[in-house]
Amino acid sequence: MKRISKEDLDGWNDDRKRARFINCLSGIKSCFLIGTCNASKQTNLAIFSSIFHLGANPSLMGLIVRPNVSSRHTFENIKLMGFYSLNLLPYQNHQQGHQTSARYSLEQSEFLETGFSEEWTEDGPVPFVKESQVKWLMKYIRTVDIPENGTHMVIGEVQCVYLPDDLIESDGSLTISQTDPALVTGLDCYHQVRKGIRYSYAKPGKDLTKI
Amino acid sequence: MKRISKEDLDGWNDDRKRARFINCLSGIKSCFLIGTCNASKQTNLAIFSSIFHLGANPSLMGLIVRPNVSSRHTFENIKLMGFYSLNLLPYQNHQQGHQTSARYSLEQSEFLETGFSEEWTEDGPVPFVKESQVKWLMKYIRTVDIPENGTHMVIGEVQCVYLPDDLIESDGSLTISQTDPALVTGLDCYHQVRKGIRYSYAKPGKDLTKI
Repeated sequence: MKRISKEDLDGWNDDRKRARFINCLSGIKSCFLIGTCNASKQTNLAIFSSIFHLGANPSLMGLIVRPNVSSRHTFENIKLMGFYSLNLLPYQNHQQGHQTSARYSLEQSEFLETGFSEEWTEDGPVPFVKESQVKWLMKYIRTVDIPENGTHMVIGEVQCVYLPDDLIESDGSLTISQTDPALVTGLDCYHQVRKGIRYSYAKPGKDLTKI
Repeated sequence: MKRISKEDLDGWNDDRKRARFINCLSGIKSCFLIGTCNASKQTNLAIFSSIFHLGANPSLMGLIVRPNVSSRHTFENIKLMGFYSLNLLPYQNHQQGHQTSARYSLEQSEFLETGFSEEWTEDGPVPFVKESQVKWLMKYIRTVDIPENGTHMVIGEVQCVYLPDDLIESDGSLTISQTDPALVTGLDCYHQVRKGIRYSYAKPGKDLTKI
């Protein structure tokens, strides 16, 4: 076992090395493409792995937006239009997904530049990703600023979900792994996941059963 | 493609069905065991999948705590002692990890009840999980309340990391998948992950290379 202290981390001269280390530490995460646009329907697509569950009633999710120029396009569009789409990134499109993290200019759409197809519905004013099998519209609720490092937590509410018919179990669970989603460690290492095993609700003193 | 609207979700009479659906929607996530204790060293261990990266300088992570009795033990201990341990759950221990979600009483330690071993260090006043290969001490910074649903975002700072020597690449990246960590969909479906592929930093108009 190696021990790396806060002082060791602070002593690393290379900021990107520390960023890679800490980004990897938070584990292997699902990749989402966030689809947005501005009032002129200039579209933007960006890969995020910091999407998390906040609650099911109301159905809220959080998203961390970093204080850098690239993701600002997404953040500005979310606040401007009040809506954004979350699209699970298929593993077969993971290289294109990674490419959306390049710093394209405001006038360039990552849809066009990286080869994803825009999909528009009547549910909201923002584009979905046609290649994604599981996607939904989010309504912007509010932002929580994190003054410690200038990041922002964006809170949104799930509006309308599109997904394959056979993905929903009768109890509401989704067999997401069946769509072969892309997972990421840190900012650049992409993975596939194996089929999962479900277990019964845990109770003290009772053996778990597979369901 | 099936379309499920907010109105459809609101119409589901079974709250747990909606909770399963929305919990699954946020994708496949890494599982962490949070180790805490109170002033009498009564220990607590709880499984969480809502841990996320907030920034690398300072090294901050967020954690969502739900407004129910079970996770309150963890939350109360974090605020009381000012420290907690985050331990990546190995896939081979995923059944034990799931069992920590049972509603044990305050006097019962999930370490003992589910068969995990406490590991104490001189770095802080809280227990680590011996079976976990990647674990670190967190210092409690503050709580952000989410009034929309009574949840809380706990912000903490990475203090001291323990991990296998050969997990760190020279550029700071961690090959977490090599430790065979457990991933989860929703609250009860556990997965293994495949080895990942790393790509170069994305730039507009430049082909990605594997690294």
